[in-house]
Amino acid sequence: MAVHGAHVGTKTQHDVEQLALACRKWGQWGEDDELGTLNYVTPERVAAAAKHVRTGRIIALGIPLGSSGPQRGWLGRINPVHTMLATGTDAAAGLQDHLHLTYADDMLTLPLQCATQWDALSHIFYQGKMWNGYDVRLVGSGGAQKNSILTTRDRLAGRGVLVDMPRVSGVRALAPGEPTYNPDLDAAVKAEGVTIEEGDFLLIRTGQLGECKTNGWGDYAGGDAPGLALETAEWLNRARVAAVATDTWGAEVRPNETVEVYQPWHHVVIPNMGLTVGEIFDLEELAAACAQDGRYTFFFAAPALPVEGGVGSPVNPLAIR
Amino acid sequence: MAVHGAHVGTKTQHDVEQLALACRKWGQWGEDDELGTLNYVTPERVAAAAKHVRTGRIIALGIPLGSSGPQRGWLGRINPVHTMLATGTDAAAGLQDHLHLTYADDMLTLPLQCATQWDALSHIFYQGKMWNGYDVRLVGSGGAQKNSILTTRDRLAGRGVLVDMPRVSGVRALAPGEPTYNPDLDAAVKAEGVTIEEGDFLLIRTGQLGECKTNGWGDYAGGDAPGLALETAEWLNRARVAAVATDTWGAEVRPNETVEVYQPWHHVVIPNMGLTVGEIFDLEELAAACAQDGRYTFFFAAPALPVEGGVGSPVNPLAIR
Amino acid sequence: MAVHGAHVGTKTQHDVEQLALACRKWGQWGEDDELGTLNYVTPERVAAAAKHVRTGRIIALGIPLGSSGPQRGWLGRINPVHTMLATGTDAAAGLQDHLHLTYADDMLTLPLQCATQWDALSHIFYQGKMWNGYDVRLVGSGGAQKNSILTTRDRLAGRGVLVDMPRVSGVRALAPGEPTYNPDLDAAVKAEGVTIEEGDFLLIRTGQLGECKTNGWGDYAGGDAPGLALETAEWLNRARVAAVATDTWGAEVRPNETVEVYQPWHHVVIPNMGLTVGEIFDLEELAAACAQDGRYTFFFAAPALPVEGGVGSPVNPLAIR
Amino acid sequence: MAVHGAHVGTKTQHDVEQLALACRKWGQWGEDDELGTLNYVTPERVAAAAKHVRTGRIIALGIPLGSSGPQRGWLGRINPVHTMLATGTDAAAGLQDHLHLTYADDMLTLPLQCATQWDALSHIFYQGKMWNGYDVRLVGSGGAQKNSILTTRDRLAGRGVLVDMPRVSGVRALAPGEPTYNPDLDAAVKAEGVTIEEGDFLLIRTGQLGECKTNGWGDYAGGDAPGLALETAEWLNRARVAAVATDTWGAEVRPNETVEVYQPWHHVVIPNMGLTVGEIFDLEELAAACAQDGRYTFFFAAPALPVEGGVGSPVNPLAIR
Repeated sequence: MAVHGAHVGTKTQHDVEQLALACRKWGQWGEDDELGTLNYVTPERVAAAAKHVRTGRIIALGIPLGSSGPQRGWLGRINPVHTMLATGTDAAAGLQDHLHLTYADDMLTLPLQCATQWDALSHIFYQGKMWNGYDVRLVGSGGAQKNSILTTRDRLAGRGVLVDMPRVSGVRALAPGEPTYNPDLDAAVKAEGVTIEEGDFLLIRTGQLGECKTNGWGDYAGGDAPGLALETAEWLNRARVAAVATDTWGAEVRPNETVEVYQPWHHVVIPNMGLTVGEIFDLEELAAACAQDGRYTFFFAAPALPVEGGVGSPVNPLAIR
Repeated sequence: MAVHGAHVGTKTQHDVEQLALACRKWGQWGEDDELGTLNYVTPERVAAAAKHVRTGRIIALGIPLGSSGPQRGWLGRINPVHTMLATGTDAAAGLQDHLHLTYADDMLTLPLQCATQWDALSHIFYQGKMWNGYDVRLVGSGGAQKNSILTTRDRLAGRGVLVDMPRVSGVRALAPGEPTYNPDLDAAVKAEGVTIEEGDFLLIRTGQLGECKTNGWGDYAGGDAPGLALETAEWLNRARVAAVATDTWGAEVRPNETVEVYQPWHHVVIPNMGLTVGEIFDLEELAAACAQDGRYTFFFAAPALPVEGGVGSPVNPLAIR
Repeated sequence: MAVHGAHVGTKTQHDVEQLALACRKWGQWGEDDELGTLNYVTPERVAAAAKHVRTGRIIALGIPLGSSGPQRGWLGRINPVHTMLATGTDAAAGLQDHLHLTYADDMLTLPLQCATQWDALSHIFYQGKMWNGYDVRLVGSGGAQKNSILTTRDRLAGRGVLVDMPRVSGVRALAPGEPTYNPDLDAAVKAEGVTIEEGDFLLIRTGQLGECKTNGWGDYAGGDAPGLALETAEWLNRARVAAVATDTWGAEVRPNETVEVYQPWHHVVIPNMGLTVGEIFDLEELAAACAQDGRYTFFFAAPALPVEGGVGSPVNPLAIR
Repeated sequence: MAVHGAHVGTKTQHDVEQLALACRKWGQWGEDDELGTLNYVTPERVAAAAKHVRTGRIIALGIPLGSSGPQRGWLGRINPVHTMLATGTDAAAGLQDHLHLTYADDMLTLPLQCATQWDALSHIFYQGKMWNGYDVRLVGSGGAQKNSILTTRDRLAGRGVLVDMPRVSGVRALAPGEPTYNPDLDAAVKAEGVTIEEGDFLLIRTGQLGECKTNGWGDYAGGDAPGLALETAEWLNRARVAAVATDTWGAEVRPNETVEVYQPWHHVVIPNMGLTVGEIFDLEELAAACAQDGRYTFFFAAPALPVEGGVGSPVNPLAIR
């Protein structure tokens, strides 16, 4: 295990740029592609993935949406605000009698990045471009004209693989600031007896969200976190995964390995590699289940809401074992 | 086919009450149950459902969320409002330079009943009670304390069955105001060669949403619609389905069979039977696919967002064939 | 009265540009000014304005904020959405008993341009610049860094003058598409016996909002409207008024006098002249009162909400006679 | 000065009830009144109030609306969320070129009690009733059917009086938990040389908001605060003021004098006396100005937004001296 903070400064902006070029997949699926690595999700693979359902147990990975969430307002991200348009108390008070119906309706106001979420390929930019070379100016107040989450509406299902980092290390959770390097990933999947396949949905657990369930969110949103080191971009690129999701706020290790770029791994994988990234996935129950029977693969269905022009989406991912 | 409007007045409030009592399942799954017919979703059935994936084709059933939606403001239901917290145009203008990151974030404000949606069991009340006999006053401005959509977070997947009513009748779409009776359902599933099983997710197509795609929404939200007649509550009860969803605004035929109760079928199936109901599902692409190869069953995954206290949820259901 | 539509095409983009330059006041109040013509509001003038209070009758000019408003969704402008965070029905149901308090709280979601409103000087741009030459890129997703409505927080009061165009013409309301030219303004103020003074708040009535009260909003928001002709920019510039407000959606005549520029008058007066503009003011009750006693001047107090970075504000203006 | 906390427990629920009955004014202005003490605002008094404008200096009392506000989420109260519907950065990126207009629009989502605000008479209930005896069940999810803030639209202006408590005591600010009793009020107005008149708008400064400007909000929203003791309800009742506003979150002293009722003073003055109450008024600049020339009276204009069914309103009050 790395000494906390020892990784800070081990990378530079130049390293990020080199890796970005090395992992860049622009044009690989045509000039007008907006799906990136979700192209790896093919009907054949989805059909094969369904065979990983054995017991039929469904495990939901979305955290509750409400004022109890982790956000503290940074970048304008608030927790979801849930209000009612009609209530049972109104019904009891007779306010709905004229309708010949008694009912409740409700409303939600939420930043699409505030809880368990998918980042669309229009979420992170790189040197004036987003995935596949589209100009960032295609994302204005009216939403994303390219790489919107809407395009993913029928792609977010397939074989899921849990990579349980702390379980392999024999700890309850990785420590904030602890990076996961490529050999760590190799060791973990080997220990689990899994072979990563093209088109897999990789769920990488650090245990941090589980710790927050016990101790409160603290500075989970934007603070120090265990997570992926920059070099894992190359590993993931090689593995041809469809998407990656973690149980942390921002997938990669915080503080980052360089202070010259904020969230450098994001710069490489989203706009350059075209990787769909999930964050704030609650992997605790799934990890316990996988550990119990030693099966780390499952069917995974995590449909994004088809938000027109959306640069992300809340999601309640299902792991079906 | 019924003459338009001939059904209005064929039922009374008394009929609704009789049927409600006949279909009432309170206590069947314990005094503290909040799931109703989703109890029919068992691991065994989910495992069996996964075998219905053959080609691996994923078909998404959620309509786009945005200002293009069907709502016209009735009951306070507006179309989703999508705003941006950060944009590519900001990035291009240099406004994000201090962050060492260029990115886009967004926000959504939406009634949870405005587009493709699940109704929670706290959505419709009956004589001061909701599902399982809970007092309606448990649903206040703070949300539903019982029967919230949150409880369904790991239940909304299983075997899906499309019942394509217009295809059986050889028409493009049922007409607004055209009721579907029990013999119609019997004939349709027979024509499709399907046997409805306990725990199925029944998707009943009228074709109305497809017509709106061509002609515009018009008064789709709350206006005349083809749909389920009151007696189908008894049919669905007997069939022990897990949930029912349609491609209309309100599942049941509009105008209703009685003017004494607004949406009488809802009164029977949601608070009394404990049936989870889905609405505004886009079944057009799915129907075309089923018609092509004659397979009307598939794996269905439609996870609700885990909204704390929510009485419904937007959803992008996946039919995986 | 002009023939409807006869004015369309009487102006060109070149005319707009000439007038913009002629009326441009950049630098007049210093390089860092953000107030424009609100600089004409001086303590002396405010003190003098207070003397126009005679009877003490207060007339409110703001239309009700709610779903009954005029918006139809264009440019993302919806009507205000009012939801409750706590209600009397909750209180009656006992849901607040633990608080030792029974109460109601509420919430509003509204475009700041949706109802009676002030446009901030950051609302309209001209050739890449806004008022006083500031770059438009200072207005990003985080709001306006310059010319925000916040800067006007202690300036929006002074002498008000009603210019009642239809009353002068002896009609109930000007017709949609009917332009008001400089001689029309001259004639109106002369008929009223008023002399426009530096720092006045000019409220120009067309009667259109009154018609909508009777007939419904129709296409009030963005449709044809009576209103100010382009040349009035010059008239207002000469008059050195502090602000101008009307009872229409967009102050100027619709359709515009040129199709080459949308809302050409706005281009001249907001970014170039630095004029604060109000719209959707309900001037009906005020007009009746002024007509009754022949006094068209009054004390005017219309404080904008101090929205950080706001490019406009809802307002309930008071005319105090 | 009282010892901090010494007042807690000096009153009981019974005392609150006695005072409520003593101050109750139901029916005084007719059975269908919804204005309460705002009935004291008469044209004659407004006309007289205008004479208090001497120098013409306008001082705005509203705090900025944005994420910098005092709220911390309690009771669902968040700080205002300001988003943009169109921006200058969009304009610069060419996204608006098709409109022949470049512009910015914005949107606000805010609890109406989150910043400088008026409480409507439908905000606080008492034993199942609100002001004038109306049933609390008239306030449901659709808003207040009686005592809505909308009814005050043309009443919130008149003579303002600043009562500067800390200045009289020679301190910068009253301490959190320090109560203001009737003799304190008497002493303060005497020291200022003011006679409170029927229909006055009383602005009572504690200095707490000024301290927060220096030190940050801390627990300003709902925490300990200097403020009005319960008995001041009687004093205010006798004084026949039109409204009272303070620079604290909740006007009355926190902790309260009794633990049996939360915010007991509110119970007496809002539902029973019919007093309109303002909170979170920024009185710092006004206090400095009054202290400088010894004039504590001024013209006051604080129009609420005419929110349909609103139980409160944000406001930017103007003191015009």
